[in-house]
Amino acid sequence: MSEQNGAPNETGRIEAFSDGVFAIAITLLILEIQVPPQTPHGSLRTALVNLWPSYLAFLASFMTIGVMWLNHHRLFTLINKKDDGLIAFNLLLLLGVTWLPFPTALLAEHLLGAHADQQIAALVYSGSFLALAIVFNVMWRYAVRVRIVNDDANVAGITRQYSLGPILYGALVGVALLDAEWCLVLSALIALYFALPPSLWSRR
Amino acid sequence: MSEQNGAPNETGRIEAFSDGVFAIAITLLILEIQVPPQTPHGSLRTALVNLWPSYLAFLASFMTIGVMWLNHHRLFTLINKKDDGLIAFNLLLLLGVTWLPFPTALLAEHLLGAHADQQIAALVYSGSFLALAIVFNVMWRYAVRVRIVNDDANVAGITRQYSLGPILYGALVGVALLDAEWCLVLSALIALYFALPPSLWSRR
Amino acid sequence: MSEQNGAPNETGRIEAFSDGVFAIAITLLILEIQVPPQTPHGSLRTALVNLWPSYLAFLASFMTIGVMWLNHHRLFTLINKKDDGLIAFNLLLLLGVTWLPFPTALLAEHLLGAHADQQIAALVYSGSFLALAIVFNVMWRYAVRVRIVNDDANVAGITRQYSLGPILYGALVGVALLDAEWCLVLSALIALYFALPPSLWSRR
Amino acid sequence: MSEQNGAPNETGRIEAFSDGVFAIAITLLILEIQVPPQTPHGSLRTALVNLWPSYLAFLASFMTIGVMWLNHHRLFTLINKKDDGLIAFNLLLLLGVTWLPFPTALLAEHLLGAHADQQIAALVYSGSFLALAIVFNVMWRYAVRVRIVNDDANVAGITRQYSLGPILYGALVGVALLDAEWCLVLSALIALYFALPPSLWSRR
Repeated sequence: MSEQNGAPNETGRIEAFSDGVFAIAITLLILEIQVPPQTPHGSLRTALVNLWPSYLAFLASFMTIGVMWLNHHRLFTLINKKDDGLIAFNLLLLLGVTWLPFPTALLAEHLLGAHADQQIAALVYSGSFLALAIVFNVMWRYAVRVRIVNDDANVAGITRQYSLGPILYGALVGVALLDAEWCLVLSALIALYFALPPSLWSRR
Repeated sequence: MSEQNGAPNETGRIEAFSDGVFAIAITLLILEIQVPPQTPHGSLRTALVNLWPSYLAFLASFMTIGVMWLNHHRLFTLINKKDDGLIAFNLLLLLGVTWLPFPTALLAEHLLGAHADQQIAALVYSGSFLALAIVFNVMWRYAVRVRIVNDDANVAGITRQYSLGPILYGALVGVALLDAEWCLVLSALIALYFALPPSLWSRR
Repeated sequence: MSEQNGAPNETGRIEAFSDGVFAIAITLLILEIQVPPQTPHGSLRTALVNLWPSYLAFLASFMTIGVMWLNHHRLFTLINKKDDGLIAFNLLLLLGVTWLPFPTALLAEHLLGAHADQQIAALVYSGSFLALAIVFNVMWRYAVRVRIVNDDANVAGITRQYSLGPILYGALVGVALLDAEWCLVLSALIALYFALPPSLWSRR
Repeated sequence: MSEQNGAPNETGRIEAFSDGVFAIAITLLILEIQVPPQTPHGSLRTALVNLWPSYLAFLASFMTIGVMWLNHHRLFTLINKKDDGLIAFNLLLLLGVTWLPFPTALLAEHLLGAHADQQIAALVYSGSFLALAIVFNVMWRYAVRVRIVNDDANVAGITRQYSLGPILYGALVGVALLDAEWCLVLSALIALYFALPPSLWSRR
């Protein structure tokens, strides 16, 4: 798919399958927002405003999946060889990605629910992201260790940026216990942070 | 993916991911049309006829997403380098594309509802298209500014055609306030306009 | 994507987008089969048997979409140049493909319903296939006329096989008026016929 | 897509379409897990715990589809020529893959239901996997027989590993008659077994 200059693209079909899963998971998020039904008294405006937890959850999860795709893309640009372990870690990562529409809908449904339910939903939501951040780190470190990473890759910079993932999402789990709405807003901000190019980290 | 003659295809995986999102969003539209359930007295014909707002919304949104894909495809044919800003704008564009099944179902549901609800639904529908037209323009102008566009690209022609987007969709928002059905019909006609090849504009 | 030997693959991204739409439409079919809910008295076996119209409709539509993909694939192997008219016809074809899950679910729901409803559902089902067969023919003839077809293509053989499409699906519309179940079974058989390689027709 | 070193990639578009179907089927699995609705008394924790059959079915089916994709990928790496019979067998395989979200949701729904329903659901689930294992074997043997397999392919090793598929899934059908939960757990373990690289088998 990408980078076909000279050398064969060994990871092409893994990337194509992963792209498919990322693209579908990110697009399925919208199915979780229910269209308010017709009512005789024309209260659609209110009904749409009351859906704000769904919009916020849609946006935060879109950003998170989008940025994960971005990092997956950057990562596989640096990986030059197919490897059975890499494929296994990648499937684990995709398991997490296909799972995300569920916690997204769960948090949207319960963001304004009973307090205990808000907490549980936010824990499942932030916990899912924490698990994905850990898998991303393990996969990257594995790729570095088995030497399937390009020589010119900024290994230290990427490792530094990725390392912050479990820390930030671990803190998000803590926030989930306190306030589900802040948990959602902060998850969007963390996604923005990971959208920054890793070159920023190497320059430090 | 496309254009692999000689130079490596730098934007390949961005296009593959975008193609996936466009293809899924355009195919999910059909899920919004509910199949009329069995009834003992055989009234399916009437039930199917009464679904015309859903067919019209399906058609208008299919055309709009299809034509956006077409323009995305044309645009990336002209872009010869990967760029972090381009990827960010592209994710913003895809956010809008994945969002579209929601306003489509919303307008279909409320096209024959209370007048105030028709208005709200048509505003959300046309406003979503306006936002996408603006993102398309900003992304194109950005690509031109950071010089990742091919030398032989018809920059002036494309800029002229795209500029009309926010104007036409802005007018559509005005129509939405007056008549939801015309808003739907006109959105299909605007899609047809953007399906025209930009070469027509350069010949003027 | 395919055929990258020497010449650049001009139709690559059209094929990628079309593959995506075909793949999603064919996979969404399963969402139309509702899982029977839990009951205290354990009647799942009967409930599953009673779903046979859904299985049959799933199978017939899977075969039809699968074989349309096959023919789309064969056709684009023979087309060597991108063309705006071709892209427009292709979008029209994809409109039909994304539409198919609706008539499939419609016929499954009403196959055992009131007789008038069976007829309507079978007419919508067979009529959708007839429209797609016509678009396929028009697209192929257009591609031949604007000379974007490979010199070694078996034009006469393909034209002959495709011509039978509107005739067979026209007859299917007639069958729909008489018997919805036969309409479904015959649509699967017609799909099998179009799965045959066109080389069989040229040898006559 | 993959392996473009020198020779043209004849099976590229078959793989792209198959990747799409695998990616969509694996991602649709999550739609089957229903989000528990809001309740005034905050019982989400219990509701989520009670969904464990859905999580288990999601995980087992994700693993099975993921590992089937892996084997499909390995298999097509070894196949060097397009063939009409191969395409037909591949469509049959994809028919099975698109079907899987249904038995997955069926078993999740009835895993804690009436005993007779558990049995039926587990039979449909394991029987679907058995059918897919048979199709995989038939397709591989066909490819070997019509000589479209690379000379350096480890034919004996793959044939040996694949042969175990129908045996293991046949045994799973037997387990389904006895205990639906064990059937689900064992299906995940069988998936793990098929994730092992076939090179392990050739070394014996």
